[in-house]
Amino acid sequence: MHAYRSHTCADLTKSNVGETVRLAGWVHRIRDHGGVLFIDLRDHYGVTQVLCDPDSPVFSEVEKLRSEYCIRIDGNVKARDESLINPKIPTGEIEVFIRDLEVLGGVDGELPLIVFGDQEYPEETRLRYRYLDLRREAMQANMTLRSDVVASMRRRMWDIGFREYQTPIITASSPEGARDFLVPSRLHPGKFYALPQAPQQFKQLIMVSGFDKYFQIAPCFRDEDPRADRSPTDFYQLDMEMSFVEQQDVFDTIQPVISGIFEEFGGGRKVDADWPQISFRDAALWYGTDKPDLRNPIKMQDVSTHFRGSGFAIFAKLLEHEGNEVRAIPAPTGGSRKFCDRMNAFAQKEGLPGMGYIFWRDQGEGMEAAGPLAKNIGPERTEAIRQQLGLDVGDAAFFLGGKPQAFEKVAGKARDVIGEELGLTEKDRFAFAWIVDFPMYEADEETGRVDFSHNPFSMPQGGLEALSGNPLDVLGYQYDLSCNGYELVSGAIRNHKLDIMIKAFELAGYDEAEVRKRFGGMVNAFQYGAPPHGGCAAGIDRIVMLLADTANIREVIMFPMNQRAEDLMMNAPSDPTSDQLMELGLRVIPQE
Amino acid sequence: MHAYRSHTCADLTKSNVGETVRLAGWVHRIRDHGGVLFIDLRDHYGVTQVLCDPDSPVFSEVEKLRSEYCIRIDGNVKARDESLINPKIPTGEIEVFIRDLEVLGGVDGELPLIVFGDQEYPEETRLRYRYLDLRREAMQANMTLRSDVVASMRRRMWDIGFREYQTPIITASSPEGARDFLVPSRLHPGKFYALPQAPQQFKQLIMVSGFDKYFQIAPCFRDEDPRADRSPTDFYQLDMEMSFVEQQDVFDTIQPVISGIFEEFGGGRKVDADWPQISFRDAALWYGTDKPDLRNPIKMQDVSTHFRGSGFAIFAKLLEHEGNEVRAIPAPTGGSRKFCDRMNAFAQKEGLPGMGYIFWRDQGEGMEAAGPLAKNIGPERTEAIRQQLGLDVGDAAFFLGGKPQAFEKVAGKARDVIGEELGLTEKDRFAFAWIVDFPMYEADEETGRVDFSHNPFSMPQGGLEALSGNPLDVLGYQYDLSCNGYELVSGAIRNHKLDIMIKAFELAGYDEAEVRKRFGGMVNAFQYGAPPHGGCAAGIDRIVMLLADTANIREVIMFPMNQRAEDLMMNAPSDPTSDQLMELGLRVIPQE
Repeated sequence: MHAYRSHTCADLTKSNVGETVRLAGWVHRIRDHGGVLFIDLRDHYGVTQVLCDPDSPVFSEVEKLRSEYCIRIDGNVKARDESLINPKIPTGEIEVFIRDLEVLGGVDGELPLIVFGDQEYPEETRLRYRYLDLRREAMQANMTLRSDVVASMRRRMWDIGFREYQTPIITASSPEGARDFLVPSRLHPGKFYALPQAPQQFKQLIMVSGFDKYFQIAPCFRDEDPRADRSPTDFYQLDMEMSFVEQQDVFDTIQPVISGIFEEFGGGRKVDADWPQISFRDAALWYGTDKPDLRNPIKMQDVSTHFRGSGFAIFAKLLEHEGNEVRAIPAPTGGSRKFCDRMNAFAQKEGLPGMGYIFWRDQGEGMEAAGPLAKNIGPERTEAIRQQLGLDVGDAAFFLGGKPQAFEKVAGKARDVIGEELGLTEKDRFAFAWIVDFPMYEADEETGRVDFSHNPFSMPQGGLEALSGNPLDVLGYQYDLSCNGYELVSGAIRNHKLDIMIKAFELAGYDEAEVRKRFGGMVNAFQYGAPPHGGCAAGIDRIVMLLADTANIREVIMFPMNQRAEDLMMNAPSDPTSDQLMELGLRVIPQE
Repeated sequence: MHAYRSHTCADLTKSNVGETVRLAGWVHRIRDHGGVLFIDLRDHYGVTQVLCDPDSPVFSEVEKLRSEYCIRIDGNVKARDESLINPKIPTGEIEVFIRDLEVLGGVDGELPLIVFGDQEYPEETRLRYRYLDLRREAMQANMTLRSDVVASMRRRMWDIGFREYQTPIITASSPEGARDFLVPSRLHPGKFYALPQAPQQFKQLIMVSGFDKYFQIAPCFRDEDPRADRSPTDFYQLDMEMSFVEQQDVFDTIQPVISGIFEEFGGGRKVDADWPQISFRDAALWYGTDKPDLRNPIKMQDVSTHFRGSGFAIFAKLLEHEGNEVRAIPAPTGGSRKFCDRMNAFAQKEGLPGMGYIFWRDQGEGMEAAGPLAKNIGPERTEAIRQQLGLDVGDAAFFLGGKPQAFEKVAGKARDVIGEELGLTEKDRFAFAWIVDFPMYEADEETGRVDFSHNPFSMPQGGLEALSGNPLDVLGYQYDLSCNGYELVSGAIRNHKLDIMIKAFELAGYDEAEVRKRFGGMVNAFQYGAPPHGGCAAGIDRIVMLLADTANIREVIMFPMNQRAEDLMMNAPSDPTSDQLMELGLRVIPQE
């Protein structure tokens, strides 16, 4: 017989009754039923009930066992009494009568964290004793989910003709715009490598190298200030790139992969098959964000026309200035003063003066529009608004006015809250949308200086010609995939033409010499027959978080840093030795 | 029709004749046959011949094309004349008559490296223009081979129930013994993270966390001085670990994976099914190395007994001292004075006084043993040696004496050279051997100080009891897989018992406090029910090198550093900005 086990703790069924078996695992819990001891023996695969009574030759040793001891047992498989069968676990019809016991790994002192049950612990405890935390059922499930999701991504990418190529991890500073992690060079003291913020330049070089289709489950490194939904050091992307493609080709390629993953691991939650393409500007108007949650049916609308010259002086006045708008958030079933007042208070809490509203009711005398706005603009305009928004008795609408950029974000939040509170936002559903036509540039409000609004390496729509007009009108072949209010994927058709790239950077204030200096590798490559190419990167941590239904990224990472970017278990970061510093030619500046 | 292509450059066959097609790719070469232009259009998948004569509407534009232009063409598929059919390529029966042309990416200036053909370039040129180098057929093949090998490893590991779990890349200094790459912390100025030399501690913690079977295609980082067969920064391992296993379980698990890979990608070369287990000491005796090349049938032997008290004074004298030995390298078919003298000269070049030899010949008067040694020890001893070594007329044997440690390495090299020169070493074969029973400790020759000889985390054979005797007699459950003279895999059954670990470190001169300080994470974990576990790591770069039959690691890495650990294409390492240094709390010490 094998030294440690003949079966896993999930294997034994009624068909094994009568066999002598060997199991290994952890003492999940141990119960004493009047001199009869029941051990739930747990391994990665399941739990088996082990029985011990004074007839067992190892009774006295079993009495000494405590939770989380790692043990090996030998015993006989017995059928449980009909009344004791547990249909919830595969081994629920049997138990093993213990005949021999070996402690493989004991427990020294008190357990800082109980594996059995659902007791909650502070995150510091969980991270410091991660190896105990990870034994818990939910964490075992999260980690296997993550592993299975990544494996499925790979299978799906292989199946459609992509190969995975590894790009360097110790490399040059990359231009993603976040802060690089640096790695001092010993062979070249005073010089530094950087960890890649993303393999963006390398994957583009792989296309220039003629590989046609690339993907990588790629670690990305950004030295960012920690947040609950972000790892402070590294995160993983399903990164892909293709040559000889247009935007729609990328969509057609990646949609089946992503939706396949959600179908496979979504646990029966609905996965939308229709992924609308929404322009960046429409997304802002309709949803107040470029990461709309389409489970929420509310779509905002421009209703300026009804307020222009109306009796509601604030909006009427505001609309005299170019660039101002009034937008409505329709709220079906939200037609009560109580709800409207609560939403108004929400807007005030978010820093706006408030949200005007109208709601429609029927107090036995037919439909009536209520709320201060309705009175001010009169019944005709009120009715026109109702018709435009398609609302009816029992519904409400909220109004925000001013420069859209100033209120869009709050409007988007209000839409979320309204959808949530009114139960309009569907549960157990994954709703996707491609956000397209991102503007290439944005102007700083104060200085008026034009800079790239997103990825500087994207191809501007209209090419060189478009770049000779107003930069703020230029759209890029750049896109995001939003799902349930999160950005899951981001990508672009790349700018592979050197002349267009130089011009595009010029508009953002970088001269050619600067571009050649900062992105020399890629710029050089583009002068030797670069193919048109594009791709995207999907956030793996985010996808697993959605599937695992958790908002904390540390629930889906095996050994995460804490929010101060420390590993408490391994003690990182730590002080370097003076030899190390000397070899690297570095001195630490004493901190005050 | 798609914007760039209706087919790849490997798709078109006779069945497409008559169709109008669109292709995209690179101008591999362009030939002018008296006003008729032939373009070999190349993409990742293959080559298609494109034909252009003055009847084509784009003749004048095609005339301007040069090598490595990236183009899109439209044209009609035509059958080639019977005489022009090229059976070596899938598209060899057709050609495409060009009707339209678009230059997608031109070439600016001279190509620093010609993609077509086999011209050799200095490595600096190849690395600086890697995107051109990678377009060459051999590099395309190497990179797809690497990708396919890694994909197959993953499939094979999944198929046997392993899951891939990612371990941290920005973490704490690891105890593998090589030099760490450090990463300065911005949030904790003056403190440093380290990049992992291997996920050793993390994979052990994954076992303690109850995951049972782990693998990872793991990047490993060691700040080592560059060598041709080693990357100066990062390399990849197929890293795996299992709980509740003994050494043989690990062998039984990984052998089918590795041999499967060699069968799949070995291109028909023979893959040995029998993987002998050879103790570290036997390997040293028989092959002079712990990485024996078993394609070479030569097995060295201890022949001390025949020289003890013999007339060959040097060896006889030497054997009076304990610890000295005389070993023979049999050399079947090496029985000529010329060959023996050459081998003797080889030994001298390697720093030994020389190798004595005997060879057996028949000059028409029956078998005769020739060479100075034979004379000195006389016919009886000579014959006894011949019989022990199983040699015959036409064969030779070489002899080395002294402390085995002093000559084993040269003996091993001589064995390689003899096997090679005599054509004994089989070609086109992969021969594997597990090297087992590594000693846990070794003593420094000068100080006598005992230290770990290999991995300090291995379980000593015999456990705690064995550690109370002479440390130099303790063997570990530690093993390597050797293939054709290279170490492919290394692993161990780990020491999961805290008391044994503390004692094992004590023997190497580390007290408990030191162990707890240096390996605190793991030591703490082992006190909470650690399972027995073990595993191994296979060198992916090395495996791909063997399969691709190259001795230079840079041939199997997409974007390698040069031998000075520089990336010439991306310009790494480079000077940090003063802002970056300030944020990290570092100052660069000026170098003299």
